[in-house]
Amino acid sequence: MRDIAPKIRIRISMNTSIIALLHGPDKPGIVAGVAGWILENGGSILHADQHHDGQQGVFFQRVEWVHADGSDPDDRAKSFYEMAVKMGMKIKTALSSDRPKVAIMVSKAGHAFHELVQNWQAGDLPCDISVVLGNHRDLESVATSHGLPFVFTPIAKETKAATEKQQIEIFREYGVQLVVMARYMQVLSDSFLDHCGAPVINIHHSFLPAFAGARPYHQAYERGVKIIGATAHYATAVLDDGPIIHQDVRPVSHRKSVLDLMRLGRDLEKLVLAEAVRLHLENRILVYGNKTVVFD
Amino acid sequence: MRDIAPKIRIRISMNTSIIALLHGPDKPGIVAGVAGWILENGGSILHADQHHDGQQGVFFQRVEWVHADGSDPDDRAKSFYEMAVKMGMKIKTALSSDRPKVAIMVSKAGHAFHELVQNWQAGDLPCDISVVLGNHRDLESVATSHGLPFVFTPIAKETKAATEKQQIEIFREYGVQLVVMARYMQVLSDSFLDHCGAPVINIHHSFLPAFAGARPYHQAYERGVKIIGATAHYATAVLDDGPIIHQDVRPVSHRKSVLDLMRLGRDLEKLVLAEAVRLHLENRILVYGNKTVVFD
Amino acid sequence: MRDIAPKIRIRISMNTSIIALLHGPDKPGIVAGVAGWILENGGSILHADQHHDGQQGVFFQRVEWVHADGSDPDDRAKSFYEMAVKMGMKIKTALSSDRPKVAIMVSKAGHAFHELVQNWQAGDLPCDISVVLGNHRDLESVATSHGLPFVFTPIAKETKAATEKQQIEIFREYGVQLVVMARYMQVLSDSFLDHCGAPVINIHHSFLPAFAGARPYHQAYERGVKIIGATAHYATAVLDDGPIIHQDVRPVSHRKSVLDLMRLGRDLEKLVLAEAVRLHLENRILVYGNKTVVFD
Amino acid sequence: MRDIAPKIRIRISMNTSIIALLHGPDKPGIVAGVAGWILENGGSILHADQHHDGQQGVFFQRVEWVHADGSDPDDRAKSFYEMAVKMGMKIKTALSSDRPKVAIMVSKAGHAFHELVQNWQAGDLPCDISVVLGNHRDLESVATSHGLPFVFTPIAKETKAATEKQQIEIFREYGVQLVVMARYMQVLSDSFLDHCGAPVINIHHSFLPAFAGARPYHQAYERGVKIIGATAHYATAVLDDGPIIHQDVRPVSHRKSVLDLMRLGRDLEKLVLAEAVRLHLENRILVYGNKTVVFD
Repeated sequence: MRDIAPKIRIRISMNTSIIALLHGPDKPGIVAGVAGWILENGGSILHADQHHDGQQGVFFQRVEWVHADGSDPDDRAKSFYEMAVKMGMKIKTALSSDRPKVAIMVSKAGHAFHELVQNWQAGDLPCDISVVLGNHRDLESVATSHGLPFVFTPIAKETKAATEKQQIEIFREYGVQLVVMARYMQVLSDSFLDHCGAPVINIHHSFLPAFAGARPYHQAYERGVKIIGATAHYATAVLDDGPIIHQDVRPVSHRKSVLDLMRLGRDLEKLVLAEAVRLHLENRILVYGNKTVVFD
Repeated sequence: MRDIAPKIRIRISMNTSIIALLHGPDKPGIVAGVAGWILENGGSILHADQHHDGQQGVFFQRVEWVHADGSDPDDRAKSFYEMAVKMGMKIKTALSSDRPKVAIMVSKAGHAFHELVQNWQAGDLPCDISVVLGNHRDLESVATSHGLPFVFTPIAKETKAATEKQQIEIFREYGVQLVVMARYMQVLSDSFLDHCGAPVINIHHSFLPAFAGARPYHQAYERGVKIIGATAHYATAVLDDGPIIHQDVRPVSHRKSVLDLMRLGRDLEKLVLAEAVRLHLENRILVYGNKTVVFD
Repeated sequence: MRDIAPKIRIRISMNTSIIALLHGPDKPGIVAGVAGWILENGGSILHADQHHDGQQGVFFQRVEWVHADGSDPDDRAKSFYEMAVKMGMKIKTALSSDRPKVAIMVSKAGHAFHELVQNWQAGDLPCDISVVLGNHRDLESVATSHGLPFVFTPIAKETKAATEKQQIEIFREYGVQLVVMARYMQVLSDSFLDHCGAPVINIHHSFLPAFAGARPYHQAYERGVKIIGATAHYATAVLDDGPIIHQDVRPVSHRKSVLDLMRLGRDLEKLVLAEAVRLHLENRILVYGNKTVVFD
Repeated sequence: MRDIAPKIRIRISMNTSIIALLHGPDKPGIVAGVAGWILENGGSILHADQHHDGQQGVFFQRVEWVHADGSDPDDRAKSFYEMAVKMGMKIKTALSSDRPKVAIMVSKAGHAFHELVQNWQAGDLPCDISVVLGNHRDLESVATSHGLPFVFTPIAKETKAATEKQQIEIFREYGVQLVVMARYMQVLSDSFLDHCGAPVINIHHSFLPAFAGARPYHQAYERGVKIIGATAHYATAVLDDGPIIHQDVRPVSHRKSVLDLMRLGRDLEKLVLAEAVRLHLENRILVYGNKTVVFD
């Protein structure tokens, strides 16, 4: 597997940087407190981006910084974490060297899966793709040709609960930190979402909230829309209603059949999903309520 | 009013051209029949565009041609009409010199109205704007400064039926052939749509079918979408459900407040509405079922 | 003129906010220094956005904050200015209540001028339009109908230098702080740009650097491009080569004639120019070298 | 190789259709002549699209039809060809069942190559990928894993002429009808283009004519553009100046480094190239002068 390992993009700073995602009640002094802490601890800010939701009185920040003094970034991240908690903020920290373990769930269609794998191999997705789960075997040989373990987890009505349990077992076994549904054509149960132990990113082949549910391209064709879209979102208990991460669209005309829409939509789906996964892996997304703040 | 009369765009051919919009059951020989008739009658095709709906077995065509022999285009159009009816087609004909009478309905917001007036003055909308109806007086002085009659038709709950009758009277009086709702903030009754005697084009400030109904930017903000849109459609008895003519969108981020979305949306609304009106006036739209064929 | 005065958008905070645009050599402690100063002086940050150009080692920041203690924002802005200069930064400060005086230069085409005036009347452009200069009289009556002084400054080859001097005189007289070329069809001389005393924003009707110079739609048509564009930039001595502020594009096909491209391009031009002017007036643009940092 | 053969998309008509691309001097009766011939010969038109270049007086048409009488489509296409030649038209005919032989030229970067192969495997590119030529071996194992012959044709300054001869030999050997440069990083000599015996489609990683030549993303970064693009065109003797087939763009900001532009551009490049190849293979492109008519 060595020779297919993704190339790491060269960074200007060779030091590991620390990324923190904070949010909490908006109040004076947060920006100064964060920047002051980093300065006092000998760090240099690489990026800092904040957002204030004026309506809800919530403050959001993504800050990335580096310590050039050879200190252990894990230790520094922990100290920062404690400081931020004392300020009353909810916080997540990560290191630029982290490579979260990702499981990809697939059915028959390969376009979204291929896109993820190629982005990963190009070094654009900082993660390890640990395992691929399919309820069909169509993509097994592709997965294994890339050195990726493939587990066949067929779903039938009566076995769904059992299969979902098995899938969650596999996630545990591999230490999965993110689940990506790459055109996985099964509705996940509430129980699955409660117990899978990792956020789940899904791609819906419409411009949500238009055309939620099944066969969105057929719905779009019937309604005669002049634009089609795709939506990547975190999966939640309410189908196709989770926090939206990324969307994109393209114009269509009356000349396009349902088959055309499906073909054109494939490009949207794969790009929108890959972008959402990248944003998640680069720790650029904060979820609050049913919405996202995306620091891109 | 002379000096504000719209400039007529110079055409390559100085002759009046005839435009026909046909549709009917798909069968061999329609294209040949139409083109053959034009050739035999000494005409030259300028544009011809057709569409086959394979699922429904329907044929659609827009054809534009010119007779260089000095014959009366009205007579020619009538003969063509009869030929097409014999072929079993539904047909509408128009002349390039036609200037349909248009009524614009407004409330307080002026952006869509301004856009229509300026497009019209630039010669891009081949029509006469005959009258402007407002349920508020905000745009009265603008209308009259352009030499356009403005009628104040205020709406209250108890007077709505009476006012709609009055509005329809005004349309009759001016011989109105197209009604454009330029951010007119009233729901039209079924009775109005049945009796107003002209197609009605409306602009909805969302990417329909997402966010139909009231306050779509608030809905979009709440849902956290990453793209907003606008939709021009023919008004029908079912609110925001008529045949879609044109749509456009633009990306937004979490940084945008509801007020920002409303500001950004104004550009979408005005451009999408003006484009839809242009397409209608240039006889480029065929409605069938709840959809449109747009020959652009 | 009272009743046509632009409505001021309601802000959540009724206090005047201070906006600072800083840039200078990147070094640790700038973010902390700025945020610390604001905190110590009793201010609350509304927005803060920074950028590091890693290649050039330059730091850029836009920060907007408010003092709720009733202190004079002008005094506060001055103190901040001095602090930032001590940190080695170049800095510009402004107040949210500022309304810079703007001159608009026009020729015959009205679309860009109309767009600016309507955005201004809708309260989206925080400025005073002080004067309109035209080398043709076509837009004089429109300008005066909006209560805007119009000065006719015709240009002939032999009088160009004299007219430019006159134009600069007018800018001085009105205290003009920004000049906007709204499809003003004259090349400005180097001398004009050196002496006009204000930044000049221009709109070029192509996707620069493609099709610089004259008749860009003709050039685009000849080259057979599938997308047309418009570019707003600061005017510099090198024609069509100044720092780009904003660009937008739209797809076209072989069906479009040069006249069609010109018509379609008008929408691009007016929207791109109005957006660039808004970004400038909201103090969102930092120019460095021949490029811009746009904090949107 | 059987099991990786692309799936053929199901068509409504199971009969092979004939596609004709015509162009020539515009004159009355062409549409009628073409449609009449098809009707008289028992054919049914599936699609017909025409274009008149008013400036140059040229008529262009793409027409697709089917004979349901079991006649040999090759014979029918030949008869039609003769008829069209008699009408003074230049004509190319093809059958919907044709699968032209395609050679793909690659260097190191795989994204455009992957996209083509996956589109082909999904049945969206009606062709046989006969051979892959690389001046590096990076993509050899990928090609062979898809069952595609890979020929290593390294290029050094002194061997370029010899290698190009070898490449043309390979095209002859495989009967290549279309050459696709999938990010092949070599400038083709005039001699190569004269003798390669097939049209060559190239993808340039900029919005041509902006940033022709080498390192376009570096050029775009230096110029500070707010939009990047990609352009697919037919290769001609003048570098990056051939007829443009398809273009697409996406917005960027000052935050994007050259590396970011390269990453973002990869998606544009692969999609734009795949679309151009599809348009070519579906016989939708007519080249005239240095431009294209694309019947999409």
